[in-house]
Amino acid sequence: MTTPSDKALVPFVSVDDMMRLIHHVGLEPMLRGLADYIEEDFRRWELFDKTPRVASHSREGVIELMPTSDGEVYGFKYVNGHPRNTAEGLQTVTAFGLLADVATGYPVLLSEMTLLTALRTAATSAMVARHLAPRGARTMAMIGNGAQSEFQTLAMKAVIGLDRVRLYDTDPAATAKCAANLARSGIEVIRCASPEEAVEGAQILTTCTADKRNATVLNDNLVGAGVHINAIGGDCPGKTELAAPILHRSEIFVEYPPQTRIEGEIQQLAEDHPVTELWQVIAGQAPGRTSAGQITLFDSVGFAIEDFSALRYVRDALEETGLGHMLDLLADPDDPRDLYGMLMRAAPAG
Amino acid sequence: MTTPSDKALVPFVSVDDMMRLIHHVGLEPMLRGLADYIEEDFRRWELFDKTPRVASHSREGVIELMPTSDGEVYGFKYVNGHPRNTAEGLQTVTAFGLLADVATGYPVLLSEMTLLTALRTAATSAMVARHLAPRGARTMAMIGNGAQSEFQTLAMKAVIGLDRVRLYDTDPAATAKCAANLARSGIEVIRCASPEEAVEGAQILTTCTADKRNATVLNDNLVGAGVHINAIGGDCPGKTELAAPILHRSEIFVEYPPQTRIEGEIQQLAEDHPVTELWQVIAGQAPGRTSAGQITLFDSVGFAIEDFSALRYVRDALEETGLGHMLDLLADPDDPRDLYGMLMRAAPAG
Repeated sequence: MTTPSDKALVPFVSVDDMMRLIHHVGLEPMLRGLADYIEEDFRRWELFDKTPRVASHSREGVIELMPTSDGEVYGFKYVNGHPRNTAEGLQTVTAFGLLADVATGYPVLLSEMTLLTALRTAATSAMVARHLAPRGARTMAMIGNGAQSEFQTLAMKAVIGLDRVRLYDTDPAATAKCAANLARSGIEVIRCASPEEAVEGAQILTTCTADKRNATVLNDNLVGAGVHINAIGGDCPGKTELAAPILHRSEIFVEYPPQTRIEGEIQQLAEDHPVTELWQVIAGQAPGRTSAGQITLFDSVGFAIEDFSALRYVRDALEETGLGHMLDLLADPDDPRDLYGMLMRAAPAG
Repeated sequence: MTTPSDKALVPFVSVDDMMRLIHHVGLEPMLRGLADYIEEDFRRWELFDKTPRVASHSREGVIELMPTSDGEVYGFKYVNGHPRNTAEGLQTVTAFGLLADVATGYPVLLSEMTLLTALRTAATSAMVARHLAPRGARTMAMIGNGAQSEFQTLAMKAVIGLDRVRLYDTDPAATAKCAANLARSGIEVIRCASPEEAVEGAQILTTCTADKRNATVLNDNLVGAGVHINAIGGDCPGKTELAAPILHRSEIFVEYPPQTRIEGEIQQLAEDHPVTELWQVIAGQAPGRTSAGQITLFDSVGFAIEDFSALRYVRDALEETGLGHMLDLLADPDDPRDLYGMLMRAAPAG
């Protein structure tokens, strides 16, 4: 066994390491921290290299690479989407990500991102709600009680002080699971039997269902004046959740228009339907909510810069906590011209 | 500590694991095996998804993602190129790669690729020489005696039975290093003081220098009738090694024309200069060498499919040898809808 030099080692965060980190920091403080990192990167949005994601499509699903860079740090996420996986006991989505130093090209972090993506998606929603939700919003309707529902709820609690969630799912078992998971969270949890019941008195309406088609999770008559809609589930071509009339009544905010027009709720609208880029709101270059009666809609699809922010958060958190471990990923010969010599010196004795 | 299920674990090959694998299999048998895997994939070239590489350029260098897929397996390589790195004691190029199952999107192999790329580059050259070099070629001129030189020489020995190499480098220390490394390889090594001396009696001329500009490593008068030129070093815009008249006298063979026209020696030629795609020669759809007097030129730049083949070889070799180890890279909750529950069950006691 040869001992690799420091330069050959890349900090690595396994799933177990990520869970340790979350428990060490605390889930709510970590969601708050992630929201702040994401907001910081939205504020300097124009700096980023916004390469479109590179997708490899197959009959069963898609594998994507999502790269971006702020000029100093480069990041990418590997993520797949395979709706039929659950039938085989596999995850629909798995992900991992990497940060590298632009100046040297050396990787500086490799991390699991299945858990981290769940956290960054929730943190992004909460950060956006901080800018767009009506003042004093304390109640959220959570429609779709799958893997993202608890994270959405706790991020809203951590970032904007949500204290009540009204749960609805077509599958009562999902609602029961979510309610049980949130039982000791300090949030009042109300299990609802219909979307109509769920939206009662809610200032924030979050839709996050897994239905892989143009569904109508939220009907027009359920959306009253002044609410903020946080639409998470409409996130790929052919998959939407909102009745089109809702879109026409809303002020629509998006991460990156070229991607959202293909993947988001607005795929239902004309290509030139006006939308506002969130980074402009956050940077003070465009108005957010302008009146109490306005319906604001965050048409969330997830963008590479949010993953970049999340990886940046993890990198800094590792430095503070000493968590994670080192991976012998890079060859580092003493003499860069002598890779062969390095290999030969590693020959087993005899 | 939670114990991840099998599905959460991805086979991983560290640099140390890769060196163990090479020594376990033997370097020459492994180069032969890689050449066979690469040839197999060239033969089914049309099957592959040939996405262009995704490059992120900076003042200091480039970071690239090189994805491909054969419809069943997806692969990508991360690779950087930073010429100034050596001044800081860092490698110019580092790389790692991944294979995933197209049907599920789950990664099935993560591997170092700095060493593996060195091996696959040499194995590709030797596989191509098997098709193009003059019959009975036994002597190679190796111009440029850096990190790739020993691998090129040993791959030619392993695949086509090369038994003599004539070394030349502008830096005598590089030649001395290469000669010392090859001293016990069973190949006759001749140290030469000039390119003129190096090409004497050689049927294969390999150029592999690090000069980052349009240089002339090989002059026209050094290239006699009937030789095979294996041009490795001209591999990015602005970096070439051969005098243009050589190109006009040669039958030129390339991996993937859209990439080679930008990165290879043929960047010196008109955009419509005729070239032959290697896969067509290997699949029997185009002629290779057609006469003893012909000059054949492999304008090598390195293509994603070669990395894919190399990763495929490593994946199979791990199954046979039990080498490598498992990485806890994927979150795998018992209930895919209950990622939060998985996280909470991993909370430290107390």
